[in-house]
Amino acid sequence: MGKDMANNTRPILVLAYSGGLDTSYSLHKLSREMEVEVHTVLVNTGGFSAEELAQIESRAIGLGSATHRTLDAQEEFYNRCIRYLIYGNVLRNHTYPLSVSAERFFQALRIAEYAREVGARYVVHGSTGAGNDQVRFDMVFQVLCPEAEIITPIRDGKLSREETTTYLKENGVDIEWKKSKYSINRGLWGTSVGGAETLTSDKPLPEEAWPTPVTETTPRTILLNFERGELKGIDGIEMEPVKGIQELNQIASSYGIGRDVHVGDTIIGIKGRVGFEAAGPMIIIRSHQLLEKHTLTKWQLYWKDQLANWYGGFTHEALFQEPVMRDIEAFLEHSQERVTGEVEVVLHPYRFVLNGIRSPFDLMNSGFGQYGEMNNSWSGEDVKGFTTILSNALQVYQNAGREKE
Amino acid sequence: MGKDMANNTRPILVLAYSGGLDTSYSLHKLSREMEVEVHTVLVNTGGFSAEELAQIESRAIGLGSATHRTLDAQEEFYNRCIRYLIYGNVLRNHTYPLSVSAERFFQALRIAEYAREVGARYVVHGSTGAGNDQVRFDMVFQVLCPEAEIITPIRDGKLSREETTTYLKENGVDIEWKKSKYSINRGLWGTSVGGAETLTSDKPLPEEAWPTPVTETTPRTILLNFERGELKGIDGIEMEPVKGIQELNQIASSYGIGRDVHVGDTIIGIKGRVGFEAAGPMIIIRSHQLLEKHTLTKWQLYWKDQLANWYGGFTHEALFQEPVMRDIEAFLEHSQERVTGEVEVVLHPYRFVLNGIRSPFDLMNSGFGQYGEMNNSWSGEDVKGFTTILSNALQVYQNAGREKE
Amino acid sequence: MGKDMANNTRPILVLAYSGGLDTSYSLHKLSREMEVEVHTVLVNTGGFSAEELAQIESRAIGLGSATHRTLDAQEEFYNRCIRYLIYGNVLRNHTYPLSVSAERFFQALRIAEYAREVGARYVVHGSTGAGNDQVRFDMVFQVLCPEAEIITPIRDGKLSREETTTYLKENGVDIEWKKSKYSINRGLWGTSVGGAETLTSDKPLPEEAWPTPVTETTPRTILLNFERGELKGIDGIEMEPVKGIQELNQIASSYGIGRDVHVGDTIIGIKGRVGFEAAGPMIIIRSHQLLEKHTLTKWQLYWKDQLANWYGGFTHEALFQEPVMRDIEAFLEHSQERVTGEVEVVLHPYRFVLNGIRSPFDLMNSGFGQYGEMNNSWSGEDVKGFTTILSNALQVYQNAGREKE
Amino acid sequence: MGKDMANNTRPILVLAYSGGLDTSYSLHKLSREMEVEVHTVLVNTGGFSAEELAQIESRAIGLGSATHRTLDAQEEFYNRCIRYLIYGNVLRNHTYPLSVSAERFFQALRIAEYAREVGARYVVHGSTGAGNDQVRFDMVFQVLCPEAEIITPIRDGKLSREETTTYLKENGVDIEWKKSKYSINRGLWGTSVGGAETLTSDKPLPEEAWPTPVTETTPRTILLNFERGELKGIDGIEMEPVKGIQELNQIASSYGIGRDVHVGDTIIGIKGRVGFEAAGPMIIIRSHQLLEKHTLTKWQLYWKDQLANWYGGFTHEALFQEPVMRDIEAFLEHSQERVTGEVEVVLHPYRFVLNGIRSPFDLMNSGFGQYGEMNNSWSGEDVKGFTTILSNALQVYQNAGREKE
Repeated sequence: MGKDMANNTRPILVLAYSGGLDTSYSLHKLSREMEVEVHTVLVNTGGFSAEELAQIESRAIGLGSATHRTLDAQEEFYNRCIRYLIYGNVLRNHTYPLSVSAERFFQALRIAEYAREVGARYVVHGSTGAGNDQVRFDMVFQVLCPEAEIITPIRDGKLSREETTTYLKENGVDIEWKKSKYSINRGLWGTSVGGAETLTSDKPLPEEAWPTPVTETTPRTILLNFERGELKGIDGIEMEPVKGIQELNQIASSYGIGRDVHVGDTIIGIKGRVGFEAAGPMIIIRSHQLLEKHTLTKWQLYWKDQLANWYGGFTHEALFQEPVMRDIEAFLEHSQERVTGEVEVVLHPYRFVLNGIRSPFDLMNSGFGQYGEMNNSWSGEDVKGFTTILSNALQVYQNAGREKE
Repeated sequence: MGKDMANNTRPILVLAYSGGLDTSYSLHKLSREMEVEVHTVLVNTGGFSAEELAQIESRAIGLGSATHRTLDAQEEFYNRCIRYLIYGNVLRNHTYPLSVSAERFFQALRIAEYAREVGARYVVHGSTGAGNDQVRFDMVFQVLCPEAEIITPIRDGKLSREETTTYLKENGVDIEWKKSKYSINRGLWGTSVGGAETLTSDKPLPEEAWPTPVTETTPRTILLNFERGELKGIDGIEMEPVKGIQELNQIASSYGIGRDVHVGDTIIGIKGRVGFEAAGPMIIIRSHQLLEKHTLTKWQLYWKDQLANWYGGFTHEALFQEPVMRDIEAFLEHSQERVTGEVEVVLHPYRFVLNGIRSPFDLMNSGFGQYGEMNNSWSGEDVKGFTTILSNALQVYQNAGREKE
Repeated sequence: MGKDMANNTRPILVLAYSGGLDTSYSLHKLSREMEVEVHTVLVNTGGFSAEELAQIESRAIGLGSATHRTLDAQEEFYNRCIRYLIYGNVLRNHTYPLSVSAERFFQALRIAEYAREVGARYVVHGSTGAGNDQVRFDMVFQVLCPEAEIITPIRDGKLSREETTTYLKENGVDIEWKKSKYSINRGLWGTSVGGAETLTSDKPLPEEAWPTPVTETTPRTILLNFERGELKGIDGIEMEPVKGIQELNQIASSYGIGRDVHVGDTIIGIKGRVGFEAAGPMIIIRSHQLLEKHTLTKWQLYWKDQLANWYGGFTHEALFQEPVMRDIEAFLEHSQERVTGEVEVVLHPYRFVLNGIRSPFDLMNSGFGQYGEMNNSWSGEDVKGFTTILSNALQVYQNAGREKE
Repeated sequence: MGKDMANNTRPILVLAYSGGLDTSYSLHKLSREMEVEVHTVLVNTGGFSAEELAQIESRAIGLGSATHRTLDAQEEFYNRCIRYLIYGNVLRNHTYPLSVSAERFFQALRIAEYAREVGARYVVHGSTGAGNDQVRFDMVFQVLCPEAEIITPIRDGKLSREETTTYLKENGVDIEWKKSKYSINRGLWGTSVGGAETLTSDKPLPEEAWPTPVTETTPRTILLNFERGELKGIDGIEMEPVKGIQELNQIASSYGIGRDVHVGDTIIGIKGRVGFEAAGPMIIIRSHQLLEKHTLTKWQLYWKDQLANWYGGFTHEALFQEPVMRDIEAFLEHSQERVTGEVEVVLHPYRFVLNGIRSPFDLMNSGFGQYGEMNNSWSGEDVKGFTTILSNALQVYQNAGREKE
């Protein structure tokens, strides 16, 4: 396909197209004003239904795209990214499962690969000059398809919503661009909610801002089955991780579980605040984390936390491609050897409770000796010796000070 | 007072006395079998009412103590320890505010100081040989009053509940020792609940196991006022931190807030599980943390987390006296310079929601530029330059591999 | 003085002037082409003699500066920066004492303060667009004197040495600009040597490239006296730290000590290589570090290393102003409480040997017990108990795996 | 073989035998006083010649060993441990390549495996109660062969050199036990030198204390060839890593290279000091580290350092078996993918100089752009944008403080 395109006389321009106002504007304008052949592409990481995808495709063609390509990247997104976020129990600033940031970065990655594949001379994204996404797209494009020039019509023209709407209207594009109070981004790993109250520091999002209404009020107990750190089943029914995440989102979202507001540092150095709804991710991460507390040693937990925190930060900040990330992945993957077992979770409106775990590798249940109980593995005398030696360094320190001061 | 004691012909034995079965046994037995003068001491870090303290004192004297001393250490506990746990948002294994471990360590510290003060030749604690507390007591005693010999009758005799009860009964001590299903430890910084289900990995604590029943069901909004990282008021009413913690425990416990189960590594190397109820601590830590997200920079948050995590670990593991802890405290204290403002919290049954913060140092509200909005502080061009430079290292890496492989 | 300037009708431009080709060009050109009053300033952090400073001043006035100010910032540089680099034993990439980077940043800081003081509307530096220094200057100016516009004639004009030389010649400036094979930067904390071989990866700097020839061949023993981490005397003669560093540089440079080549990541993301000569810094850091090994605990050393490494990185990378740096300084300063004592060093051509230390806080000499010798502080039995408990976690892990796999 | 032994009526005792006084005493005594069959074993990790091994074997048999087994563990020691120490550039306290500690631990590991293999009911080591080695042996034995009882005659009897010598003499064992001023431990990864001056803090080891005299004075240039982090050749001649280390020790020891004194924390909490001679290890580590500076990114170097430092600590402190060590190994191994190339080293008496490196993955030589030189990959404008964005966080912080204070 890349070959066919390359046979064209006009250079190829690849445009990341979401069907929204900004990218529709870019598509219309560039396909008319530049001597290029425009090819639109959409990377679906879980935010679009089949109908929406079909509608976007027809809109793309209608606005001037030579071809439109929908890449379903959920599996790949899971395998190359989400998987490690789970291994690492990644919650940015102790709160945010990177619902949008990981996804956006991953979309950029796939688009860059596509651009390279088709030999694009230009790559276009619709980001403004105000947020994180521009960095994610620029970054990936520069590294993965450096031969293509990056074009960002909205950012370059500092265009407002009014200007783009007007342009399209004047050019005969008759689409109703819905303007909602909140900007919603849906994806496999969560949905973000921005706007209005999130622009302040002191106001919570009102009930109506959350995409999924709370309809379930009866507590429900579910079992999550993990194998080597991956969710491989729910309530004993085997399923692939992507399916499991979708399923869990389905079940738990209507409880209002996983709603929270993230406050953190953007890539460009200022603070930002964003609401999110991530029922599945939050339950999976917390369950996985509990299972790890039972199956990993203290120092595995300690170092996993260090590395995973960094991994999450770089993922968020468009540095997913840093080679250290691959080294960290090797660590994280290795650490999951024994993270196998089931976790019992009870869903309540707005919250969930982890009842406990069962695992063949449960270190609390190793047959070796139990906390707070007498046993044959060690004695009070051993502990005395332990403490005596452990206190040596402190006694030396006390002494050195006492004698000489 | 130490002087008076020292005038005695019999050596002084200081016994950490809680009024319970194990320390009552120790008190009775040692005061009869050793040629010593027994002085009992109780360090109150928030777990006892005035009545209970009076009752314990009279019991101590009745069982053979020459003097009984009650040390109220709540202020000191706060100033020398809890304060830093708040600065550091310390939650062991992302869950546990160190409700008992910090307190127990601190009690040991004050007892060791007391033993030193009175010139004790022996110090006694009632720990068994199976848990963390023995390490905490031994450790502190060895470092702070190395001249005193440590005696641990329960641990040394591997005594069971039956044995100690029988001994006391046979020796005419007629006290009803209540045997409850759960072992409860109350303190300023939380209450722990051990036993029964916590000895398994898969069962949650039932409703009746939790010390405070849930009686409040109406949501309530409260304001927490922080100054340089310390809680200095609630709902605009100024109060000292200790008072604030007590107040908040009072208000929030009956919502069932702050209940959770901690799974983690004990000092002696095995895994342990314990329930806890810590309404005040959980709300304070999460509120303080949110305020910090608004007032500290990304790298302050990052390094605070590293150090505080370590600080919490060493506090838990009886290494509070390690000199590095004082260095970490210097860091933590310095970091709190701007952690001033108020946090709005809504209490619901079993959960709470942080509505937002107001602070003169809010970095989201600095008048400099807002996330996602156009502004004059920087342009899209600047971001392009930023990303170009940021991508240099990755491009170099790509190139080095591409050319030479 | 700032006031006087402000009375002028023409806006004030502050130019960081070193007397070299690039800043002379900038001075001549801007003072003629812009409607401004140019005030030059040079921050001496140890790289200039009194004669050189006088010569630079007269050159500045000759080229069009309204006033020239020399700020001696050695004390301040020491107090606000070098001191912490010593506390932290900072060697970037295990090698480089930040000889130039810390200094350059500090110069920028003082110039920004000066610009603010005199109410400058413009600040000018002579950096090119290829290195680290431009970031250091831009960064500091943007943060500390954001009201002033930054002008960088060399970078903006992408000017070569030929172009600037020609311009000056054509404008009647008749100065002989020496063009040397190596670019040398001298300062209190070391001298850097760039050019020729440092642009390759495989060639060492030849003997003639090093600024200070090796003339001493007789070994010499010296004593360094530290107080709370600061060098306060040499061979028992008290002196202030800045004087001590100068003295030590004097003594040790002619041994060829402290020569090395640093390879590392520049702020702009590519790798760079630079030679340096830093006799005093290397001896001080290594001596200080040895003294710390004797006086600090294992965990103080561990955490100091973590924080100091970061501190060095941010200092190098123009992020000295990050608030976390002040928090780290609080930690580092607190850690130095006991870093007092003397270190014996033997100087040899091209190397030095640390003979040992004497300190009232020496933990090897605390009277508590000595490694490898029998003692009364603990017994072999205690160690058995210690190891038994220490092995618990590993045994549990073995068991969990063995039984269930 | 384990089977044959098991057929015996007497239980099997495995004794770690080095041929020295303490283990000879243990062998003689236990083989006479216990109803066991004694099997001696020696794990050679590079410290013994073939003659020495033969002599030790005959001494073992002579003193009462039923069988003596020599296990050559150099390859295994390299593959399971040294390799990672090189990947991690491990130098404890920035100085010590773990010459003895890694080796001793590894010997313990192999002996435990052997004990398990032959079904030993007892395992014996000759450690005293004063040092690190007892912990290493106890630890490994408890974890790997928990079914065997550990016996330590020297530690248990608190025996002095005089006592053991006398015992052996009285029992007709007529061996001359050389008593040297220094205790020397040789191995593949270095030789340690303890005693006399190392028991003080202020005295260096004299020339005669060092095992290898300095005989070479002519500088010599060598090339080390690395492949994926491993030394695979010297001067272009391919050889396996173990061979390479031996060769390099051979070449460089007579220059007096790699001599130093390590001061650090022992496992039992007190400080210790030990001299070491490790020509090969020091040259390999420093060369490998330089190669990494050229081939790895800044963040790979950063995280490698963190993990490797921990890895070295746990290796030293008998915690090599902690599961986190295997996770770290996965990280370290993955990070070596591009650490391929040659390093040029010049040997001088008492020191060596790294001239530079050549590597297909050299990031300084990627054809992308060179530090300090104009290039086409980015412009001064880009750097301006970069710095503008980078300064955002600091400006926000300044603003928040300025406006509100």
